[in-house]
Amino acid sequence: MSITHAIHRLTSLLGEGLSLSKPVLETHGLSETYFPPTPPDAVAFPRSTDEVAQIVTICADEGCPVIGFGAGTSLEGQTQPTRGGISVDFSHMKAIRRLAQEDMVAVVEAGITREELNKELRATGLFFPVDPGANASLGGMASTRASGTTAVRYGTMRDNVIGLEVVLADGRVIHTGTEARKSAAGYDLTGLFVGAEGTLGLITALTLRLRGQPEAITAAICAFPSVANAVACVTDTIQMDLSMARIEIVDTATVAAFNSVAGASMPETPHLMLEFHGTESSVQEMAETFGDIATDHGGMGFEWAARPEDRAALWHMRHHAFWSVLQSRPGCRSLVTDVCVPISRLAEAVSAAQADISASVLYGPILGHVGDGNFHAILMFDPNKPAELEAAKAASERMVSRALDMGGTATGEHGIGIGKLNYMEREHGDAWNIMGDIKRALDPQNIMNPDKLVPPIN
Amino acid sequence: MSITHAIHRLTSLLGEGLSLSKPVLETHGLSETYFPPTPPDAVAFPRSTDEVAQIVTICADEGCPVIGFGAGTSLEGQTQPTRGGISVDFSHMKAIRRLAQEDMVAVVEAGITREELNKELRATGLFFPVDPGANASLGGMASTRASGTTAVRYGTMRDNVIGLEVVLADGRVIHTGTEARKSAAGYDLTGLFVGAEGTLGLITALTLRLRGQPEAITAAICAFPSVANAVACVTDTIQMDLSMARIEIVDTATVAAFNSVAGASMPETPHLMLEFHGTESSVQEMAETFGDIATDHGGMGFEWAARPEDRAALWHMRHHAFWSVLQSRPGCRSLVTDVCVPISRLAEAVSAAQADISASVLYGPILGHVGDGNFHAILMFDPNKPAELEAAKAASERMVSRALDMGGTATGEHGIGIGKLNYMEREHGDAWNIMGDIKRALDPQNIMNPDKLVPPIN
Repeated sequence: MSITHAIHRLTSLLGEGLSLSKPVLETHGLSETYFPPTPPDAVAFPRSTDEVAQIVTICADEGCPVIGFGAGTSLEGQTQPTRGGISVDFSHMKAIRRLAQEDMVAVVEAGITREELNKELRATGLFFPVDPGANASLGGMASTRASGTTAVRYGTMRDNVIGLEVVLADGRVIHTGTEARKSAAGYDLTGLFVGAEGTLGLITALTLRLRGQPEAITAAICAFPSVANAVACVTDTIQMDLSMARIEIVDTATVAAFNSVAGASMPETPHLMLEFHGTESSVQEMAETFGDIATDHGGMGFEWAARPEDRAALWHMRHHAFWSVLQSRPGCRSLVTDVCVPISRLAEAVSAAQADISASVLYGPILGHVGDGNFHAILMFDPNKPAELEAAKAASERMVSRALDMGGTATGEHGIGIGKLNYMEREHGDAWNIMGDIKRALDPQNIMNPDKLVPPIN
Repeated sequence: MSITHAIHRLTSLLGEGLSLSKPVLETHGLSETYFPPTPPDAVAFPRSTDEVAQIVTICADEGCPVIGFGAGTSLEGQTQPTRGGISVDFSHMKAIRRLAQEDMVAVVEAGITREELNKELRATGLFFPVDPGANASLGGMASTRASGTTAVRYGTMRDNVIGLEVVLADGRVIHTGTEARKSAAGYDLTGLFVGAEGTLGLITALTLRLRGQPEAITAAICAFPSVANAVACVTDTIQMDLSMARIEIVDTATVAAFNSVAGASMPETPHLMLEFHGTESSVQEMAETFGDIATDHGGMGFEWAARPEDRAALWHMRHHAFWSVLQSRPGCRSLVTDVCVPISRLAEAVSAAQADISASVLYGPILGHVGDGNFHAILMFDPNKPAELEAAKAASERMVSRALDMGGTATGEHGIGIGKLNYMEREHGDAWNIMGDIKRALDPQNIMNPDKLVPPIN
């Protein structure tokens, strides 16, 4: 019983579908952020659920760790094989198994990415709305309970995955959920596997809820004298029940980075950027109502645009904000925070984070999904200066601590992985032990993505 | 270790808060439908979470079953103490612990009912949107994952409970979720306890997501030549992404019952009833758009109303449909089905159910939440004629079987309890065993609402 035996048996099973090549192993041991590389012992490229089940059966038999791998865009080290084992890469499982247009449902394999799916859907008038920014795989997005800019209207992966096909830790394949829009038939296993980060099983296929492409889309942008004004405007907008599809904040530092990298000349103050989806008249009405609310809160230079090219221009800054920030510090890496707080505490949380960053050695612009109370500080650090990484970790820790004090969460959308394990006990108390109980019940050998999410097992 | 010892110790703990009175025991052993009464050995009326924790600790120590009881309105025997034990009645735990208006969040104790909560919220401009019809307790609604007429817009309890306080099977108290709008921090325990029917622990308090009362509401009603026409109209309406707050179907038999009991004179054909929430102009636009779609599908006598009294008149029939049906057969009881199917199969599912009912001895009008693909047949039976109950069960079984063949679920909103246990294996396959594994991990003694939802344990 060993990893070596597992690799031997998996080579017989998969042939070319098992890679031991060094570059492949290295790629599968990287993180998008500051964690040191931890390559797997082998990378499997299954082509079917049946192959995934056989891989896991062998690994269970050999006590070998199994780590799912989608597009590798997670931010908390979720795909890193901390104790070696087999990385199961879903890039050869991208089929759309079924598209039920009338029911607005698609069944897709775990490896298809968000952009690939939406490209396939384009002609149908439907789309999958969750947009975490990165072109992540749907299996990965489900596993980390991803959300992003559109969650304020369409919800997170929790709200848009209605069923799953999962290979369990003993190789059994189960199906959760149905194609009906709701069900009261027992424990919500779909919801349990969404956000479980591969620690309870490997998601091989997903039943997704699709949406109709809106008849009309309007975008709007508005500058504010302060983050507090912008957030107060958001609170009022939400209470008016305006059906915003996106409402994003960028702080002064983000605008400055964009101006500098893209040669733009936006006023260097916080901005809100919004998108409304609806009918022609409703999106116009919503944009105008928002304009009035913004004016009440000191908003300046309010612009709105309905034509696709004008919308694209308005959103250009937000879409390029993250990259502008990274490009503004060549050679640096980033630690990206993602606390989420009740909206009433958001202005305070952002201001305190800004103050912390200003008082440190760090450069750390802030932007975020303000309609959900979720924001990111992009804490840049020079990998050759350990003190900068330590400062970034300390700033992140203070943000989390404040978020928890405010009744919020350590992570709105990036998940736990290895990067946020330290906060779980404080956020959940004894409920974290219950997560451990569930893990032990479903994966008694602790082979499914060990060392992530739950309390240490062995 | 016994129920008798538990009662002795609970009497010391609770004094008057533990009832052994025969009428009280009998009330807590009843079902709303066809199950024979199974009274508990005692009924506890805790006044705090701490008391609930002490009750469960004693029961765990004595191996005594613990069954949560809210308003007693569940339909599948969820509150019936099948093997005796303690019924824990939450009617003395109705506090609103916290109301965070700006965050649109309320923390309430499990015993408060939907109507009580909304009455308290009236002056705030906020409301809790889930409406299963019955004036159920929020703890009960969460435990059965209730939904109802507004789920098409606002979602089910799964979507509107963001955190829970739960007393576990060993008496520990845990808190799940936060007051932030979303979180990616570990397994979704909130989602696991919502719909668990008290088999994993007792919900003592809930953090609820509230909504802003809409600026404007419009109601509409329209008659259709057939269920198929009405459903086709619904499908088109959903694909247009009209933001309906309710969309309900009633079949000819329901209209006839209403006419007969209420002395009305509605045309005896299927009807759709709708409600739109939004701004003044958007609800008008939606009602008009719906009117056009309805006409395309043979809709007749389309009416819409924005004034509250006119809306009430339009909705009168739907609100009284269930009672009209019950009153039309005095002395009879009902078995109410609640299958939920993909919308594309809804017309077929309803027509087949109607055909089945017509071919039987049964009287069984159909109505439902057509925007979700969820419908009810109210199968009336004379309790003195066992053949009628058998016919009702057989008709229900055929509806479920068809729903599962269509990719749907045995229960859209009533849950499993003891009434739908027989369908779990077919609906979930091996995933049902995983539910059993979770149950054993969290309640190893099987004292929390035994014999419900999961595979038989002992």
